[in-house]
Amino acid sequence: MIDILFDFISRYVSLSKEEKKFILSLDIFRTVKKGTILLKEGQLSKESYLVLKGCIRTYYNVDGEEKTTNFFTELEVLIPPCVSSKTPSKYFVACVEDTMLAVSNSDLEAKLFKKFPKFESFSRILSEELLTQQQINFDEFKTSSPEQRYQDLLEKRPDLIQRVPQHQLASFLGIIPPSLSRLRARIMVKTKD
Amino acid sequence: MIDILFDFISRYVSLSKEEKKFILSLDIFRTVKKGTILLKEGQLSKESYLVLKGCIRTYYNVDGEEKTTNFFTELEVLIPPCVSSKTPSKYFVACVEDTMLAVSNSDLEAKLFKKFPKFESFSRILSEELLTQQQINFDEFKTSSPEQRYQDLLEKRPDLIQRVPQHQLASFLGIIPPSLSRLRARIMVKTKD
Repeated sequence: MIDILFDFISRYVSLSKEEKKFILSLDIFRTVKKGTILLKEGQLSKESYLVLKGCIRTYYNVDGEEKTTNFFTELEVLIPPCVSSKTPSKYFVACVEDTMLAVSNSDLEAKLFKKFPKFESFSRILSEELLTQQQINFDEFKTSSPEQRYQDLLEKRPDLIQRVPQHQLASFLGIIPPSLSRLRARIMVKTKD
Repeated sequence: MIDILFDFISRYVSLSKEEKKFILSLDIFRTVKKGTILLKEGQLSKESYLVLKGCIRTYYNVDGEEKTTNFFTELEVLIPPCVSSKTPSKYFVACVEDTMLAVSNSDLEAKLFKKFPKFESFSRILSEELLTQQQINFDEFKTSSPEQRYQDLLEKRPDLIQRVPQHQLASFLGIIPPSLSRLRARIMVKTKD
């Protein structure tokens, strides 16, 4: 797990021995079982997550119904809005699979940035990258039909289709489960043609 | 314009006289006429925008049709994905009104962060805030009906409804213009009841 984390950070900034040692001294690794709720609606939290192995998802409770908005798998980062807004979370974060995480915390980060300013650079570049990726995803969602969204998913994140329950996937694509089944059937027929 | 910019930055980090003087020495203010295209599809750009006065929008050309994805008004920041991804822009940025901007540039920022590390903190906090706001907007878009989206807009950004053309607003809300007209009529009837 440690090497995965070091490799991830090294994509953005180089790490000295001292910095690696310091990271190791922090208690940031967590192994969680499938089904575990990491964050509840209404909860205040300072925690952000880097998925080292496994899958977590974000969902809202809308009139008693779960609406899944996103999935995070290997080397994807989730910074819940409540961390920056300092207001109670509007959504839940749950583990879709047994998951290994590196868990950061805004208090910890404040100390870290002071001790090693390099980590603030890392955090800035990462936030900009996440912002960019999210903007692209949002725009694609707005400008695509449900069928295009599913085709895009097949191309870009084919593993998700195997890993997550269909009703969560349908919700994530902004459609109802029967529509997803029809859409899959239609695409399979096209592929066979 | 200068005071608006200083006030904006001071929300995140305090500014010394020297830092203010340095900002003033940079050529970052730009006044642009309504209709000006700031960024074209296919163009490489390093520029980010803070709107000091006016309104800009992002839109895609999908099969010859404009699809508006976002509007940015006073004190809102747009960092186009091409800045961080270093790949050609997939969308256009145009001025909906005569607009005054502070224009940043990733080369300029790199120099600025070296000279005044404080600006890297500013940039990090701002990126995190933008990421948070965008995540909330995306989730709301996914979990709301078009009518709820319009109601939310009436509450949160009522000025937009007056400022931008209806067909752009419909596109932004993910609906077709006749649906927006029907939706407005329905809401007006409800409000009168």
